[in-house]
Amino acid sequence: MSKSASPLNLDPDRFFPVEPRTRETARRLYRSVAELPIISPHGHTDPAWFATNQAFANASSLLLTPDHYVLRMLYSHGVPLETMGVPTIDGDTAAVNPRESWRIFANHYHLFRGTPSRVWLDHVFAEVFGINVRLEPGVADYYFDTISAALSAPEFRPRALLDRFNVVLLATTEGALDALTHHDTLKMAGLGDRIITTFRPDDVLDPDREDFTRNIAELGALTGENTTHFGAYLRALRARRAYFRARGATATDHGHPSPRTADLSTIECQRLFDRCLASLADEHERELFRAQMLTEMAAMSLDDGMVMQIHPGSFRNHNKPLYARFGRDKGADIPLPTSYVSGLKPLLDRFGNEPSLRIILFTLDESTYARELAPLAGHYPCLRLGPPWWFHDSPEGMLRYRRAITETAGFYNGSGFNDDTRALLSIPARHDLARRMDSRFLAELVSEGRLAVDEAEELIVELTVTQVVEAYRLSIPTVPELAAETIRKASGTDRD
Amino acid sequence: MSKSASPLNLDPDRFFPVEPRTRETARRLYRSVAELPIISPHGHTDPAWFATNQAFANASSLLLTPDHYVLRMLYSHGVPLETMGVPTIDGDTAAVNPRESWRIFANHYHLFRGTPSRVWLDHVFAEVFGINVRLEPGVADYYFDTISAALSAPEFRPRALLDRFNVVLLATTEGALDALTHHDTLKMAGLGDRIITTFRPDDVLDPDREDFTRNIAELGALTGENTTHFGAYLRALRARRAYFRARGATATDHGHPSPRTADLSTIECQRLFDRCLASLADEHERELFRAQMLTEMAAMSLDDGMVMQIHPGSFRNHNKPLYARFGRDKGADIPLPTSYVSGLKPLLDRFGNEPSLRIILFTLDESTYARELAPLAGHYPCLRLGPPWWFHDSPEGMLRYRRAITETAGFYNGSGFNDDTRALLSIPARHDLARRMDSRFLAELVSEGRLAVDEAEELIVELTVTQVVEAYRLSIPTVPELAAETIRKASGTDRD
Amino acid sequence: MSKSASPLNLDPDRFFPVEPRTRETARRLYRSVAELPIISPHGHTDPAWFATNQAFANASSLLLTPDHYVLRMLYSHGVPLETMGVPTIDGDTAAVNPRESWRIFANHYHLFRGTPSRVWLDHVFAEVFGINVRLEPGVADYYFDTISAALSAPEFRPRALLDRFNVVLLATTEGALDALTHHDTLKMAGLGDRIITTFRPDDVLDPDREDFTRNIAELGALTGENTTHFGAYLRALRARRAYFRARGATATDHGHPSPRTADLSTIECQRLFDRCLASLADEHERELFRAQMLTEMAAMSLDDGMVMQIHPGSFRNHNKPLYARFGRDKGADIPLPTSYVSGLKPLLDRFGNEPSLRIILFTLDESTYARELAPLAGHYPCLRLGPPWWFHDSPEGMLRYRRAITETAGFYNGSGFNDDTRALLSIPARHDLARRMDSRFLAELVSEGRLAVDEAEELIVELTVTQVVEAYRLSIPTVPELAAETIRKASGTDRD
Repeated sequence: MSKSASPLNLDPDRFFPVEPRTRETARRLYRSVAELPIISPHGHTDPAWFATNQAFANASSLLLTPDHYVLRMLYSHGVPLETMGVPTIDGDTAAVNPRESWRIFANHYHLFRGTPSRVWLDHVFAEVFGINVRLEPGVADYYFDTISAALSAPEFRPRALLDRFNVVLLATTEGALDALTHHDTLKMAGLGDRIITTFRPDDVLDPDREDFTRNIAELGALTGENTTHFGAYLRALRARRAYFRARGATATDHGHPSPRTADLSTIECQRLFDRCLASLADEHERELFRAQMLTEMAAMSLDDGMVMQIHPGSFRNHNKPLYARFGRDKGADIPLPTSYVSGLKPLLDRFGNEPSLRIILFTLDESTYARELAPLAGHYPCLRLGPPWWFHDSPEGMLRYRRAITETAGFYNGSGFNDDTRALLSIPARHDLARRMDSRFLAELVSEGRLAVDEAEELIVELTVTQVVEAYRLSIPTVPELAAETIRKASGTDRD
Repeated sequence: MSKSASPLNLDPDRFFPVEPRTRETARRLYRSVAELPIISPHGHTDPAWFATNQAFANASSLLLTPDHYVLRMLYSHGVPLETMGVPTIDGDTAAVNPRESWRIFANHYHLFRGTPSRVWLDHVFAEVFGINVRLEPGVADYYFDTISAALSAPEFRPRALLDRFNVVLLATTEGALDALTHHDTLKMAGLGDRIITTFRPDDVLDPDREDFTRNIAELGALTGENTTHFGAYLRALRARRAYFRARGATATDHGHPSPRTADLSTIECQRLFDRCLASLADEHERELFRAQMLTEMAAMSLDDGMVMQIHPGSFRNHNKPLYARFGRDKGADIPLPTSYVSGLKPLLDRFGNEPSLRIILFTLDESTYARELAPLAGHYPCLRLGPPWWFHDSPEGMLRYRRAITETAGFYNGSGFNDDTRALLSIPARHDLARRMDSRFLAELVSEGRLAVDEAEELIVELTVTQVVEAYRLSIPTVPELAAETIRKASGTDRD
Repeated sequence: MSKSASPLNLDPDRFFPVEPRTRETARRLYRSVAELPIISPHGHTDPAWFATNQAFANASSLLLTPDHYVLRMLYSHGVPLETMGVPTIDGDTAAVNPRESWRIFANHYHLFRGTPSRVWLDHVFAEVFGINVRLEPGVADYYFDTISAALSAPEFRPRALLDRFNVVLLATTEGALDALTHHDTLKMAGLGDRIITTFRPDDVLDPDREDFTRNIAELGALTGENTTHFGAYLRALRARRAYFRARGATATDHGHPSPRTADLSTIECQRLFDRCLASLADEHERELFRAQMLTEMAAMSLDDGMVMQIHPGSFRNHNKPLYARFGRDKGADIPLPTSYVSGLKPLLDRFGNEPSLRIILFTLDESTYARELAPLAGHYPCLRLGPPWWFHDSPEGMLRYRRAITETAGFYNGSGFNDDTRALLSIPARHDLARRMDSRFLAELVSEGRLAVDEAEELIVELTVTQVVEAYRLSIPTVPELAAETIRKASGTDRD
């Protein structure tokens, strides 16, 4: 490489509006919350990391192999997944050299220009590893060595990172059959209030899964219920929910293809369940079963108080040959048009007015923001909106979300930010981005005379911490006082 | 309340762009139209107010109880509708204390931050009632007393407010069976040209309505037609249209669930009508009947010159238990995906090229702006686009509308602004917002070299008054000269 | 006309952001590419123009009669197509006076305010014809005379215009049955590398076309195949592709109503083909046949390396009476909701992972940008995204595209700009607009700290030329060096 390395500088004003007065307001709002603790009520980090607290192996296996955003973009430009260390479904791992993977990544890093992956990764490189040159082919080895060396140090162990990142609560997500042994370990280590689980029962609710029948049998074994009977199946689910609650869970999560719900008679439920278990159900019946089970989950949430998250609308594993070779979560999930208004009606007709029910809705179909989600959440007491999700967890995505949602749902039918990530190191980057974009949005409202500055000061704190705690029914004793203190300080700055 | 009351100041530059040069252009454009009279060609104020000219009772019954935007947001945060004075469908009115309603509203006023309701209400508080502290719990009683006291004064009587607001034309909306006695009263009082009606025949066109069969019988009684016969039913509708035209109506309005149209044979029409009247029609047939009736309405518009408004795509009364208890229009209507291209085709195939037909299309599905509505309106001579409607009648909604529509439909296939409100006091606020947002949009085009400043000066006047008068075929003799004079003055200011 | 003519000045900073620092960056990025040659890999200019190199007749027949954007807007305001010189389908040309057409156009020129037509036309008037007064009724004759006089000069002959516009490659688009004689002429004139054709086989793939059966017979005659047999039909198509490739074609183009694909057995294909040829196929079968043929085209592209363009989602000839009178392409095509995720799956299941396949997707349904197209293109190696198309080839359309696409697909799954026009004179205007809007978008990223300035300097060159050459597999030997040189110069400017 003939040219010298480019600098990597994170602009301290990044993502703020360019107009000077508005930028100054955004900067001030951001500063008031930049150091607030991170609350991560929904995500996919591995509880084993924190339970075992082992060092991470190297830059590639930590930052590339498990990151579906990275894999998909590289794959779109012809990089085989094997070269990123992704094992095939048969367990074959190509003789992969992690350093070589990193070099290939460096050669393709320009592909990420303008994407949130670039934002998150640059933040990780600069802030977590202290690197000050941009990732380019000529510095691939320097990056690989710097990162891999750092990872072996005690301050890069998973628990140390949580401390460093000031993460006061982190929710992982586990399937209904998970024994949650890591969470038991964490509880014994005094981390049970800090790292909690989330009940994600897709494995026992979704008859499209190839392991559905086996899972239902295992559910029966785990709970001592005869799960061929629909009533016993429901009891078994209640038992698992209780098991998860005992490991800190305050929420369930549902990744159905659609937000469709149903409200069938018990006899119909049993008939449908029989057909699903016998693998006789057609596509329509399987969809109907999932629909019914969302309503059943709402019924259980009403009883046990768990917050219900619905993450619908992804066509999972769209690339058939790739799925056959590598399995799930390799960057080949594609959003679908999603219909909430009719889909949710059976559930809402039954439970929509229950004051103690809490459902958080997510979407990959932004056309529903202003048309369906904001109107629904701005009316039904049980509904809250999740933050922009997945492809939309990005600067433009966040602006579109706030601009499309706020006028109809207000700020108070949201649920703050969540990072939804398995990329541990990127958690601060993601929360920082959200805080910056919220500061920006609020600053724009202030500059345009649409919000008083003291209201913006209050809102930035509420969006950052208060709303998350409230929406997910978390108990983090320090947060309310910290929030109040932050608002007091902001107003002081403003008025003195 | 320990802290002192927050000030309520309407920023004179609110909603304008923040960049100084563009803001100055927006300001200048806005100033040229800020004082132009209000023309309100579509809305839902109660003609009884103006006919009887009685004082309004109190702050809550005027500003809260009838406002579905307010009700929905409060309800989404657990406020029961009863506490806002909403009577149940059985006529039960809880022993409601209006002052208590207002206090609850004040306690929840933060929910409206960032919403157009907040914009409109603050405008009403500041400009109509002269209040200069922000609505917060501590000033609830001060607000209630100030507003209620003002309402008893003669200058707050409905007709006085029309004068004060400089409303030169106001269209109300009445069902096909309405006797329009208030409009007769207004005519006798010399206000017949100023307050006109609009023909909204959903009650006799929509077989989904529980009172459909009864309404058709009443239509027959009113017109002396045997309305079990489709031909006579059409004649009866024509008679009612003539009746409405005699009370000033220049437009009809149609709130169908979809913009679907049809063009059936007379025999099919009679068969379908029979089934609807006998309550035998299934969902598909009822939709087909409504579809046919839109085409019939277009045929009649061609004859009598009435402008046809289509307001489709709302799933009315989505909250079943709430509807059962409180009835319609309580904030539980949710938009649906709406399809215009195929839906309107039968009507357009028959009448789309008629130069004298005028149809104004509205939508709650913004994804149709650039995809369907602008292309349709930018081709068919009979089509005009209505302004952003309902949830989209908001700052961001207006920007999205102009940005998505203008490049394909131009400015001249629109129809100006209409407020579509039953909230009389908010009419100036809504028109002011529209004028500001249009000024802003035009100023941005000017700053980016996309429009000459003299063209912007012309357009802001056309969008504010000329286009409304033209689109709705209104006759307001003073407007053309006023518009011309305003443009002359603006150019003068600019060039001298 | 009492008032004096308004000036026509193209703002040198038009379309740039208004904030001064960002504007300066945009200006600098734009200047680095403003003079780069035009590469036009997809469009609809008439090869006869360049083959015969005759002078254009007059302003109206060149600029109005063939421009469907102009026709549709005028028609929407009641201007009959006859008055614009459009012949009826029977070949009747009303006794049209081109000067009179131009006067009518001038009277309606305000309709185009805020539209891209206005941008393109003003650019043509000012830059191509040197006119410095705005088109208004009072200068209609001056315009008509100036333009018509210029057109008779040698420097306004088609080939001279290509030189003047610095068009180094121009692709026309021809039906599968076209003899391509003009391209043969051009080849002999040494222009074969500069003006190439594109294979657009809708005429022999789409059974909805009234001439489908006749076309298939003609295809057989041209290729010596018995095209009633599906296998021979495919062979005939391969032969025509080879014929087009020999005339420079590097791409095919497909204007299907939907992007639906299929993967049927040979027996099913033959059965479907039989029914289509016999005009027995119903709507569903005709759609299925087109779906299958997209997959067949992909199979052929895999063999012959032609880039496959899919332009789906237009409801062609929506205005039935107008179509009956004037035929296709008169401004009455309306976009439809378009579904890529399920539609493309059969094709992608079969060929989606082929490294040598290249498919460029376009859309008229912007709701698919972030939801479907960016996720698909950001994963599948065979997919690239075309630039904003048709109604969306506009300033706001381009911004929406970049903002919705980039975060998920990056910059490198695009294919640069193409003008897709039959309006020869507007080609520089359209490319200039695209360069300005890309400069603007990149400048905004730079100002917000989302992209380094040297990356923006590289990207603007890549978007302008490199990406087009790569996406369309063009061979223009001078471009790579020109691109590299431009980037070098930009960095120099920046760093010295």
